[in-house]
Amino acid sequence: MEFDKSEPVPPEDYLIVKYDDLMNFVKSVFIKLGVPDQDAFYVAENLVTADLRGIESHGVARLKRYTDGIINGAVKINPNIKVVKEGPSYALIDGDSGLGQVVGIRAVDIAVKKAKETGIGVVTVRMSNHYGIAGYYALKILEHDMIGFSLTNARPLVAHTGALGKWIGTNPISLAAPTKTPPPFVLDMATSIVPIGKMEVYSRKGKKAPLGWGIDKEGKLTDDPMVIRKEGALLPLGGLGELFGGHKGYGLAVMVEILTAALSGAAMLRDVGQTQGPGPSNVGHFFMAINVEAFMPLEEFKERMDYMIKTLKSAPLHPDFKRIWIHGEKSWLTTQHRMKHGIPIYKKTAQMMKEVAEQVGVEFPWELPW
Amino acid sequence: MEFDKSEPVPPEDYLIVKYDDLMNFVKSVFIKLGVPDQDAFYVAENLVTADLRGIESHGVARLKRYTDGIINGAVKINPNIKVVKEGPSYALIDGDSGLGQVVGIRAVDIAVKKAKETGIGVVTVRMSNHYGIAGYYALKILEHDMIGFSLTNARPLVAHTGALGKWIGTNPISLAAPTKTPPPFVLDMATSIVPIGKMEVYSRKGKKAPLGWGIDKEGKLTDDPMVIRKEGALLPLGGLGELFGGHKGYGLAVMVEILTAALSGAAMLRDVGQTQGPGPSNVGHFFMAINVEAFMPLEEFKERMDYMIKTLKSAPLHPDFKRIWIHGEKSWLTTQHRMKHGIPIYKKTAQMMKEVAEQVGVEFPWELPW
Repeated sequence: MEFDKSEPVPPEDYLIVKYDDLMNFVKSVFIKLGVPDQDAFYVAENLVTADLRGIESHGVARLKRYTDGIINGAVKINPNIKVVKEGPSYALIDGDSGLGQVVGIRAVDIAVKKAKETGIGVVTVRMSNHYGIAGYYALKILEHDMIGFSLTNARPLVAHTGALGKWIGTNPISLAAPTKTPPPFVLDMATSIVPIGKMEVYSRKGKKAPLGWGIDKEGKLTDDPMVIRKEGALLPLGGLGELFGGHKGYGLAVMVEILTAALSGAAMLRDVGQTQGPGPSNVGHFFMAINVEAFMPLEEFKERMDYMIKTLKSAPLHPDFKRIWIHGEKSWLTTQHRMKHGIPIYKKTAQMMKEVAEQVGVEFPWELPW
Repeated sequence: MEFDKSEPVPPEDYLIVKYDDLMNFVKSVFIKLGVPDQDAFYVAENLVTADLRGIESHGVARLKRYTDGIINGAVKINPNIKVVKEGPSYALIDGDSGLGQVVGIRAVDIAVKKAKETGIGVVTVRMSNHYGIAGYYALKILEHDMIGFSLTNARPLVAHTGALGKWIGTNPISLAAPTKTPPPFVLDMATSIVPIGKMEVYSRKGKKAPLGWGIDKEGKLTDDPMVIRKEGALLPLGGLGELFGGHKGYGLAVMVEILTAALSGAAMLRDVGQTQGPGPSNVGHFFMAINVEAFMPLEEFKERMDYMIKTLKSAPLHPDFKRIWIHGEKSWLTTQHRMKHGIPIYKKTAQMMKEVAEQVGVEFPWELPW
């Protein structure tokens, strides 16, 4: 089944690029900035994975924020990532203001190693930066046939229940679990109704946002994505007030803040800085790897996952829907489609990438028609 | 501040009972049924804690389901609870169809012990029963100044995104974390918009449910709580469809199903049975204890929690709200109020309790005015 998660886009507004070319370009930018080859690979893979999975807001569209962070000195290219505390099944990592992806991968490696040895690996992280999509790390843990869990805090964008203004991040939760039949289960969700990237996409297209996603500075629901983004705020999953569970989305965001930041020593709420500086952003993360084999034979677990998924898909269809989806399925199909047909890059993103290439001094391998 | 979480209730419909009397009564019922004293205490404490915290749907109103389960032989009074798999930081427990509270407390004790020794304790459980409020176990872990995490699956009540009918449980998530200034942070939430108990309360009062909480058998939103409860279904947090994030609530419910059931060998989705039988319900749980001291000095963590809470409360108030609440605060204030002024028991619940007392052969210590 050919599938692309994003809405069909006017081809004149998009550059279509090959996976390998995009990977090589992004890698070359970071290598040119002095990032070690392997670390540059992780950053590139993280960003390009987001684009492959149809999460453009967290893909190469963010390239300049990372390069600016390095150029401004807020992000270190050779951080001294330290294990501050450690036990057989846990660690606390200080990322020394390295790239979030570099610090995150180091933390994931430790979590996986501990889970191999003891069944469970929990790693919490401070002094990191924006780490891209949370799902990337859950997927890295999944490569070891383990259950992967990835959380991060972030700069405030959400008004918690009863509040005006931006106070807490969209603090995502990702969990990946292996299945026998692909795709694996991959939940990767902001704890707000929508991530801020949706506001960017809607305002770019001149579209109104559905009423309920965000509020203006006086707390009124607004359909203007720019108002939500600038002086207003996003709303937590469940929406405004408590009637439809807005306090639950708020609670999940605080849960993420506790595990990623209160527990690690990272900055909390409005103390979280920006990747592009000034100063360290001190973002916090939390990872957990659960070694399935410690609990039951891997094959048995995968069969149980398949049974659960098959059962969920066997439900009679709601008349408004064409299909029942499992988490990670759309992104997986989109990845297959984009590996074959290329990755669409919005013209403004492509232009930004070209400027970054010129600024940093690497070749920009595409012709832009604009 | 005197506070009661529940709406004011007509006094003629409620019996007001003292905490000690209610505890002793519930305990006496289970002891009479052959449950060991200490186990009976945990069941009583679990149910009465729900009533104290203002979660009547999970309090003594459920007494008869548990006693029926024992009387019908579906729930064992002396289960052979076994550790099936174990490592320094994890365990898999088979509850042998014991009372969910008895199995849950055993699992929590193991999680806490492992967290004391290694920093982290993860315990997943199969062959258990309905365990009451998820928050009870997170609070038990909190007593050790640890971060407590409690999840359970349950009989299906929720239509997942795109489906008709009841397919997955309201699968709650609870996280408790210590603070310096009481109350502690206690998130205790169903992953549906509302728990099924709300439908019971609304239909009892002859009230319509807000449109958006649930659907009828054809998938249409309905405000009839009985339709939602009987032939319809609850909706996941985020509501019907994907526009306001219903797929996220669905994803959280599946996350809980994976950790509590796929990983433990418990029954999944529609295979989960009823506490009152016939046959074992084979409910699954997942607990995690995080020993804060492994990561930073406890006092420092508590101060960080206080700082976070103070910051969240410092936000300018939304005009529709009188106050910004932190999770667990309403329940904590309600507990204080009810410890002082008594616990309201709805007349039907009181009558059921009296019938259970007669059935089992214990004294019912209250006069009913009805």
